Amino acid sequence: MNKKTKTAISPTREENYPEWYQQVIKAADLAEISPVRGCMVIKPWGWGLWENTQRVLDKMFKDTGHENAYFPLFIPKSFLEKEAEHVDGFAKECAVVTHHRLEQGPDGKLHPAGPLDEPLIVRPTSETIIGAMFAKWIQSYRDLPLKINQWCNVVRWEMRPRIFLRTAEFLWQEGHTAHATAEEAWEETRMMLDVYADFAENTMAIPVIKGEKSAGERFPGADATLTIEAMMQDRKALQAGTSHFLGQNFSRAQEIKFQDQNSTECFAYTTSWGMSTRMIGALIMAHSDDDGLVLPPRIAPKQIVIMPIFRNDEERSQVVAHCEQLKRELEQIPYYGRMLEVLLDARDVRGGEKKWMYIKRGVPIRVEIGPRDIENDSVFVGRRDQEKSAGMSRTEFIGQITSILDDIQNGLFTRALAFREEHTRVITDLDEFKAYFTPRNEEQPEIHGGFAHCHFVDEPEIQNVLKDLKVTPRCIPLADEPFDGACIFTGKKTVTRAIFAKSY
Amino acid sequence: MNKKTKTAISPTREENYPEWYQQVIKAADLAEISPVRGCMVIKPWGWGLWENTQRVLDKMFKDTGHENAYFPLFIPKSFLEKEAEHVDGFAKECAVVTHHRLEQGPDGKLHPAGPLDEPLIVRPTSETIIGAMFAKWIQSYRDLPLKINQWCNVVRWEMRPRIFLRTAEFLWQEGHTAHATAEEAWEETRMMLDVYADFAENTMAIPVIKGEKSAGERFPGADATLTIEAMMQDRKALQAGTSHFLGQNFSRAQEIKFQDQNSTECFAYTTSWGMSTRMIGALIMAHSDDDGLVLPPRIAPKQIVIMPIFRNDEERSQVVAHCEQLKRELEQIPYYGRMLEVLLDARDVRGGEKKWMYIKRGVPIRVEIGPRDIENDSVFVGRRDQEKSAGMSRTEFIGQITSILDDIQNGLFTRALAFREEHTRVITDLDEFKAYFTPRNEEQPEIHGGFAHCHFVDEPEIQNVLKDLKVTPRCIPLADEPFDGACIFTGKKTVTRAIFAKSY
Repeated sequence: MNKKTKTAISPTREENYPEWYQQVIKAADLAEISPVRGCMVIKPWGWGLWENTQRVLDKMFKDTGHENAYFPLFIPKSFLEKEAEHVDGFAKECAVVTHHRLEQGPDGKLHPAGPLDEPLIVRPTSETIIGAMFAKWIQSYRDLPLKINQWCNVVRWEMRPRIFLRTAEFLWQEGHTAHATAEEAWEETRMMLDVYADFAENTMAIPVIKGEKSAGERFPGADATLTIEAMMQDRKALQAGTSHFLGQNFSRAQEIKFQDQNSTECFAYTTSWGMSTRMIGALIMAHSDDDGLVLPPRIAPKQIVIMPIFRNDEERSQVVAHCEQLKRELEQIPYYGRMLEVLLDARDVRGGEKKWMYIKRGVPIRVEIGPRDIENDSVFVGRRDQEKSAGMSRTEFIGQITSILDDIQNGLFTRALAFREEHTRVITDLDEFKAYFTPRNEEQPEIHGGFAHCHFVDEPEIQNVLKDLKVTPRCIPLADEPFDGACIFTGKKTVTRAIFAKSY
Repeated sequence: MNKKTKTAISPTREENYPEWYQQVIKAADLAEISPVRGCMVIKPWGWGLWENTQRVLDKMFKDTGHENAYFPLFIPKSFLEKEAEHVDGFAKECAVVTHHRLEQGPDGKLHPAGPLDEPLIVRPTSETIIGAMFAKWIQSYRDLPLKINQWCNVVRWEMRPRIFLRTAEFLWQEGHTAHATAEEAWEETRMMLDVYADFAENTMAIPVIKGEKSAGERFPGADATLTIEAMMQDRKALQAGTSHFLGQNFSRAQEIKFQDQNSTECFAYTTSWGMSTRMIGALIMAHSDDDGLVLPPRIAPKQIVIMPIFRNDEERSQVVAHCEQLKRELEQIPYYGRMLEVLLDARDVRGGEKKWMYIKRGVPIRVEIGPRDIENDSVFVGRRDQEKSAGMSRTEFIGQITSILDDIQNGLFTRALAFREEHTRVITDLDEFKAYFTPRNEEQPEIHGGFAHCHFVDEPEIQNVLKDLKVTPRCIPLADEPFDGACIFTGKKTVTRAIFAKSY
């Protein structure tokens, strides 16, 4: 039998990666495009991924001394305008509220009425409104550091939306902090990047490169933007989280001032950092295969699904009762900060159909139990990361479940890391660079080299080559030691290298 | 010493209840009015209350078979217009998005640009957008019931905002369900009202009356609205949660259809239900006193604050270490679905100042520990619900902490219930009714009778008397047995009674 005809997802990754992505989302019932332009509907299985993201990150934020708060959805236009670069960066994608009611017109239809004196922008990010509050709350060095996080929705108008990756409305968290010194603010910026990298690698099993953005890729208004960059299976980069050192730009624009120990008035140093529902797109693209979603157990809404096998009502009640008992036992086992989450699907649906449903949804462990298994005190276990299922004793299964899950989690990370390393190359020659980023053939326009690690000088003139290739500098890796080389584009001497890639 | 001069909050409840409310919020650092018209900023201590609300309610929703999902912030105008009563109910308070970018005009300033073909309404509630998705998802009776909940922000333009009680943007959850039969939908509507009542009474210690809204007070588009009504300390009613039986109104407007077992096409029956950040306003007004916020332990962000007492650095390190140990031990004690939450405040601040800070913030238990206490292995314990503090042995304190907290929780509920009963009267005479709702004197315009329990016939003509008194029928209590009487307004025979009150 031809392997190709067996895949649950069509097209496969090789055939058409962007379409494969949409089909994985559909098959796993994660989300849908909504009738509202550019906005998505996140369905329960997709929401479960975001709930876990929130739970794990929120604890990490609190453990690093942050408190949650909530700020207005709307930002007055004048607030956004206070920081010039900032408003320039977001002006083209602002949803603007101009009226505050609907009124019947002469045509009998409802029209916007009650024009606002000042238009309100649906927040694309909240530096300016949070900064305005910080300016009020901070008077003295004793009020610093101020470390706040907000979980919320934001809107950035998108002409070409893609579920999770690029939607007009998305959900995220945005951290905002103020500090007395540049050093402290830098330390915060670095620490939160580490938190993001830790989350991406240890919870989502996605290896990331920590680095600094080049000037052209910075957050509008930031002095520096740190980023974690991940490689997807089409070898493109995805920016998975950013942490910005804002220097005194926003504090000067918004008068976030404090009196230091000598009663001198100083501007605070601020930071901001965010991770969004985009991360779910990264999760999907990093691990999934041609049979659908593959979930690392630590982020999966359910680690295990139990499927009772029965032929008649009598068997059904016996087998289901047995499965419920197993579920209860498993739910007593601590796993990654809570208890194992187990789904029991006792619907009277054909076994194959049910099994494939959970393969497509990426549940890490499937357990099938029929009357024979009860007799033998065994369970039939399938792992999402392996093709073959196998029987094992019930006791053994319960005893080993967390190490099996760790094995899956680590396996996914290792595989993704190997993939990235396989498709990362140090390149010192511009022709090789161009060839590396040229698609292999026209039928697979997505397939190219991957990440290129090159010396470069961050000058506007290097943009021409990059634009043609649709490649950007993703980051200057923090782990890179400076060493002598020549800019691949200009030949100028430099000690700085960057990761170059096509990207989402 | 005059009691009046001792209160931490000025004015007192008696002096000026609305202003007292604002001052309690300020003194407890719960929230602030923002520079954005009608929108509030929820600060960390206030957010902690909402986090606990979410945690407890979310578990109750999941335990009753609901799943979380997320739907767009924006609702196309045409969607809102599908249900005529619905759009009429919300048209006057819609924030309308009409443009999708900002562009520099000839005046050099940024102006709304990129007009939308169809205006988008920032959701005031999501029946219409969720209904559109339900129509897509539901084909067969096998797809029912569909039980979804969403945690999100909503916007209803407010001309006279009041923090937590009435803000242009607020946070809430909205449940939306679809069922094959009216009976099932009614059962759901009733069940969710019970969930809300359970939460209000057992988590927030606020006694509520479960009832049905009269026709004039229904949710726009609903066949019936169930409500829980609570009495605040100014004897006004506050609607604390509502559960709507929508019949087939929305399913007809939106074509939420399914094939039943006989392949007949039928319209589904739908429900919706919501509880919002308004509930935090209810919490504040139900329990707080003239010294500030009073929190039931089950909803408090922290149940206990430990304050080390020291005179010098040597004492400090000894006492703080001792307090940290106590904190760790307390945090191992399970309490209401998680562990005790304990705050250790070791700042070098005057003891009195620190103590009053936590009184004003409503922390249920304050523990002071100094060197002498360590010697005696004792702790000095203050309860927010009692004036006097007292020493007790450390062991005794740890052993009894959860029953002390239960005692506080129950005490607050009992006190609030007694208050409501004291200020609820069965009234059969219209003059008495009028006198009951007339303020006692001009200096205290807020003080009136409270709840009146009266026979009535739900007719438009009764509105005249009610309007003059600024009184509304709050609900027809579900617990009321029908018995013969005469409508207090019209004299007509009826078996129906309602609770009448002034309200928030």
